Amino acid sequence: MAKPTKTPRPRAAAPKGFRDYFGAEVTERAEMLSRIAQVYHAYGFDALESSAVETVEALGKFLPDVDRPNEGVFAWQEDEGDWLALRYDLTAPLARVYAQYRNDLPTPYRRYAMGPVWRNEKPGPGRFRQFYQCDADTVGAASPAADAEICAMLADVMETLGIARGDYVIRVNNRKVLNGVLEVAGLSGDDKEHERGIVLRAIDKLDRLGEDGVRELLGAGRKDESGDFTKGAGLSEAQAGTIMGFAGAQSRILLKAKATLKEMEADTNFDPILTAGYKLLSQQVAQIEKPGTLGPNQPAAYFANDRVIEYLRDLVEGSDVGREGVDELEHMSELLNAQGYGPDRIIIDPSVVRGLGYYTGPVFEAELTFEILDEKGRPRQFGSVAGGGRYDDLVKRFTGQAVPATGVSIGVDRLMAALREKGRIGSARAAGPVIVTVMDRDRMADYQAMAAELRRNGIRAEVYLGNPKNFGNQLKYADKRNSPVAIIAGGDEHAKGVVQIKDLILGAQIAENATLEEWKDRPSQYEVPRGDMLSKVREILARHGLDRNGLAE
Amino acid sequence: MAKPTKTPRPRAAAPKGFRDYFGAEVTERAEMLSRIAQVYHAYGFDALESSAVETVEALGKFLPDVDRPNEGVFAWQEDEGDWLALRYDLTAPLARVYAQYRNDLPTPYRRYAMGPVWRNEKPGPGRFRQFYQCDADTVGAASPAADAEICAMLADVMETLGIARGDYVIRVNNRKVLNGVLEVAGLSGDDKEHERGIVLRAIDKLDRLGEDGVRELLGAGRKDESGDFTKGAGLSEAQAGTIMGFAGAQSRILLKAKATLKEMEADTNFDPILTAGYKLLSQQVAQIEKPGTLGPNQPAAYFANDRVIEYLRDLVEGSDVGREGVDELEHMSELLNAQGYGPDRIIIDPSVVRGLGYYTGPVFEAELTFEILDEKGRPRQFGSVAGGGRYDDLVKRFTGQAVPATGVSIGVDRLMAALREKGRIGSARAAGPVIVTVMDRDRMADYQAMAAELRRNGIRAEVYLGNPKNFGNQLKYADKRNSPVAIIAGGDEHAKGVVQIKDLILGAQIAENATLEEWKDRPSQYEVPRGDMLSKVREILARHGLDRNGLAE
Repeated sequence: MAKPTKTPRPRAAAPKGFRDYFGAEVTERAEMLSRIAQVYHAYGFDALESSAVETVEALGKFLPDVDRPNEGVFAWQEDEGDWLALRYDLTAPLARVYAQYRNDLPTPYRRYAMGPVWRNEKPGPGRFRQFYQCDADTVGAASPAADAEICAMLADVMETLGIARGDYVIRVNNRKVLNGVLEVAGLSGDDKEHERGIVLRAIDKLDRLGEDGVRELLGAGRKDESGDFTKGAGLSEAQAGTIMGFAGAQSRILLKAKATLKEMEADTNFDPILTAGYKLLSQQVAQIEKPGTLGPNQPAAYFANDRVIEYLRDLVEGSDVGREGVDELEHMSELLNAQGYGPDRIIIDPSVVRGLGYYTGPVFEAELTFEILDEKGRPRQFGSVAGGGRYDDLVKRFTGQAVPATGVSIGVDRLMAALREKGRIGSARAAGPVIVTVMDRDRMADYQAMAAELRRNGIRAEVYLGNPKNFGNQLKYADKRNSPVAIIAGGDEHAKGVVQIKDLILGAQIAENATLEEWKDRPSQYEVPRGDMLSKVREILARHGLDRNGLAE
Repeated sequence: MAKPTKTPRPRAAAPKGFRDYFGAEVTERAEMLSRIAQVYHAYGFDALESSAVETVEALGKFLPDVDRPNEGVFAWQEDEGDWLALRYDLTAPLARVYAQYRNDLPTPYRRYAMGPVWRNEKPGPGRFRQFYQCDADTVGAASPAADAEICAMLADVMETLGIARGDYVIRVNNRKVLNGVLEVAGLSGDDKEHERGIVLRAIDKLDRLGEDGVRELLGAGRKDESGDFTKGAGLSEAQAGTIMGFAGAQSRILLKAKATLKEMEADTNFDPILTAGYKLLSQQVAQIEKPGTLGPNQPAAYFANDRVIEYLRDLVEGSDVGREGVDELEHMSELLNAQGYGPDRIIIDPSVVRGLGYYTGPVFEAELTFEILDEKGRPRQFGSVAGGGRYDDLVKRFTGQAVPATGVSIGVDRLMAALREKGRIGSARAAGPVIVTVMDRDRMADYQAMAAELRRNGIRAEVYLGNPKNFGNQLKYADKRNSPVAIIAGGDEHAKGVVQIKDLILGAQIAENATLEEWKDRPSQYEVPRGDMLSKVREILARHGLDRNGLAE
C-alpha cells in the first residue's frame, strides 16, 4: 500500500472579494440598522427575513441559456436537480415571498428587510462580493401616496441617524415623464428599444460627460479621450433637442431664470430692494442650484419645485404617459409639502434616472450634500446613499397579475461611511474593556470578582487570561484592546487592602509629552482602597467621556 | 425563425429546507441576540462577522476525496477553480480568521459572533438548512479560568434573558476524565480507536438506552426493538465496569449516598433531627438528583460537587491525563464558587460528553430544567440550549502550531422557543400599528399628518394605502395587522373638527361576548376633538398594556 501523502496546510484567507468585519465595524452597523428599523417599524413596516438561498428559477433575471446559470450570482445545482443561488438583492426575494404568501399577508404589505446579499462579480478596491442592503417596500399600493411615504420616511431615517437637515436631500423624478419625453421625440415604438437603451445610458452619464458628451451619444456617437468610439443612438437634431431638454432640465430652468433676472437688472428703473419678484426669483435660483438653501417656510422654495413641474409639463405636451408622470410628481409634492416635507428636504429633480430597467413610475434618491475630499484631496459632494422607485411587474412573473410596488434600498456601507465622515460614529476612542491584570496566579478568583463587580455596574471589564508571567505583555495587551483603565493588585496591595488603578489614556498622553520628572511622578496611576475601586474607575471613565457608548446622541 | 416559446411562470417557493421569518419572529430574535451581545461585550468579547462564504479548503472537515466536495455543505466551484462553500458553523471561520490575522489580534482573543449558518442536509420537520448560531470563544488562553469564564457568562446570559435561577443549570465535565477512564480500561492505544468510537457513542445514548443498553453496546452488541443488531465494542466485563462507573457516575454516587442514608436510618440510636451529617447528606442527594434544589449559601450544595469530583478522582486513579482532567474540573469549580456561581447554577456532571470529536478538555452544556409538555402531552425537561468546550487543535490546521481555545455556541431557535415557553417573548399581542383609515381620498394629506403626529410621539401608525372605496376592507386590513386602534375621519367629522377613535381590541372582546344592546352602544368607539386624538390613543394603548414593546422586562 502507498504511504498516505501529507496534506498541505490550508491557506488561512477569506475567498477573493470577501472580507471579515471586526469589533466596532460590526456593532456600529448593527446599531445603525437597528435605528433605521425603528423608523421603518414606526411607519407600520413589518420585518421580513427571507432565506439567503433561493431557487435560480425564483430569482430570475440571471438566467442566460447556459448549463451553469451563475452569471452575476453564486449558484450551484442540488443533487436532485434544482439550481440554487444566493440572493443578489432583497427585492427579488420580496417578490417571491409576496407571491408565495399573498393570501396570508395584508394588502398593502409594508415590509422592511436588512441583511447581506451576494454578487458574483469581479472584486475591486472597496468592491466586495458580499455586502449589506437595507430595504423598505410597499407592495399592493398603487397610489403616489405610497411613494411619498417612502420619501418622507427616508428623510426621517437621515435625521434619526444624525444627518442634519440641509446635509441631505431626497431627489424625486418619474419614469413616466421620461417615457413621455421619448414619445414626444418619436422613440416610443417597440422597434426603438435599442435607441431607448442608448438614450437612457447617455442621460445617466450627464454628470460625467456634460451636455455636449451626452448630445454626441444621442447623435452619431462619441470618441473618448483614449480614442475609443461609442456608437450613438443616431437621433435627429430635433429629437436630441427634446431629450436634452429633459436631461438638462435643471440647467435650462436655471438659464431661463437667470436670463429673466438679467433682464430685470438691465431695466433702468430697477430697484432690487423694492422688487419682491426679483428677490423671489433669485431665491428660487439659489434653491435649484443648491437644494436646502431655503427653509420650508420660504415660499420661494416651493415655487422652485413648482417651476420644475411646470417646465416638465410643457416638455411632455401631447404625451398621455408624460402628463400622468407629471401629475404624479405634482401629487407627491403636494402630499409631502402638506406634511412639512418641503423642498428643503425633498425636491423634484429631472436628472434622477436610476439605472434599473424595472422602474415604472416615481424614482427617488437620497443624496448627501455636504462636501468631503476625494482620493486626490479635491472637495466633492458625498453623493447618493439610497435609491428606489416604483416597480409594478416583479410579482407578475410568478402570478400573472401585475401588483403595484414601490420601495427604497439603503446602501449600508456608504451610509456608514457618511456617518463616520460626520463624526456620528467611530469618532470617540472605541470603548475597550477595563483590564484586571494578573499579578499572582493564585488570586485569580479575586481578580475575576473585581471584573464581575465592574460589569455588574455597567462597566465592560475582563481579567487577563494569557500567560501572566511577563507583566509587560499584559500592558501591551491592554494597549491592543484600547483599554482605558488597568487594575493592578499584587501581594503588597493585597496585604494593604488596596488596588492600583492606571489611567491608560492619560498615561499615553503623558508618555507623549511629559518630562522625565512628570513621568516619574506617575500621575496617571492611583492607589485606592479596594472598596473604592469602582468609584475611581467610574471617575476616570467619565473624565475621558467614556461613560456612554455607541452612536453619538 | 422559430417562434419564441413562452417561458412557464417560476414557482413562488423558498427552496426545500429553507424558510422565511416574518415580523415578530425577526424582531424578537434580533432583540434576544442584542441582549446576549451586551453580556458578551461586557465580558470583553469583541464582535466578529466573518464572510458567509469560505473556501472549502479553509473550512476543512468536509473534504471527502470526491470531485464535488459538497457533503454536508453547500459548495460550488469558482470559474478560476477554487471551491467555495457556505459556512456550516461559526467555529471553523473563527479558526481561519485567527490564523489569518493572528499578528494583529490581541492574545488571548475573545470574540463573539452571531449569524446564519448553512447545512446541506435532508430537511425534516423543524429541521432547516439555514439557522442561526450565537457563539463566544476565547482563543489563546490555556487556563481553565477561560473555561470557567465562559460558564459564568452563559449563566449571566440566561438570567439576562429572564430565565430564573433554578430554571437552568450549566453542566460541566472534562474530556480528559473520559480519556483517563479509557486509559484505566486499557483502551488508550492507537489501535483502539474503533472501540473508543463505539464507547463514546454508547455513553452519549445513556439517556435513551439506560445503563443496560449501554452495557450491551460495550460488550458483544445490542438488538433493538425492531430486531436490528448493533455490534458492540467487545469489552471485557471489567473494562465495561470501569466505563459504566464513569457513564453512570451520577446514579452510582446517588446509590452509594442513599445506601449510607439507609444505614444511618437502620441505626437504632439514630435521631434524624439531631444528626447534622444525615441532613447534609440528604441535601446532597437532593441536589444531585435535582440541581438547583439548594441555594449557593447551603454548604451541602458545594459538597455535592465535591462528592462528584472525589468519585471521579478515584475512578481515574493511575491515569495522568485523567488526574489532569479532574484537577481542571476542581479548579473551575473553585473559581466559579469564589465568584458566587455555586452549584445552584453550575454543576459538575460526568454524563456530559458532547458529540463533537474535537473537544480536548472541559465541556459544558446549558440545560433548562423547567418542564414542558412534549408532542404527546407528557411532561419532560426542556433540555439543552447551549453547549461548548475546549478545542485546542482547530487553528493548528493552518499554522502548524497548537493554539488553545474554548467557547460556547447557543442554539438560537431552541432558546427562542424556551423564552416563548416562559412567556418572556410573544406573550403580549404583537404591537400592530394604529391605522388611520381613508374616508375621503382628497384628504390624504390630513390622514398622513395624523399618522405623523402619532409617530412623532412614539406610537406606531400608518395610513391605509389600499383602495379606500370599501370601508370594510380597511377594517379587515386593520384586523390582519393586529391593529389596536383605528382612526376614522370622514367629511362630517372634518366639518365638526373631530375624529372617531375605535378601540379594536375592546371591540373584538365585545363582538365575542356582547348582547345586541351593548353592541349597538358601540362602547369601543369614541368621538373626540381632533386636538385630543393623541391623548385618547395613548389612553387606549395604556389600557391594553401596549405602551411598551419588545421582550418582557
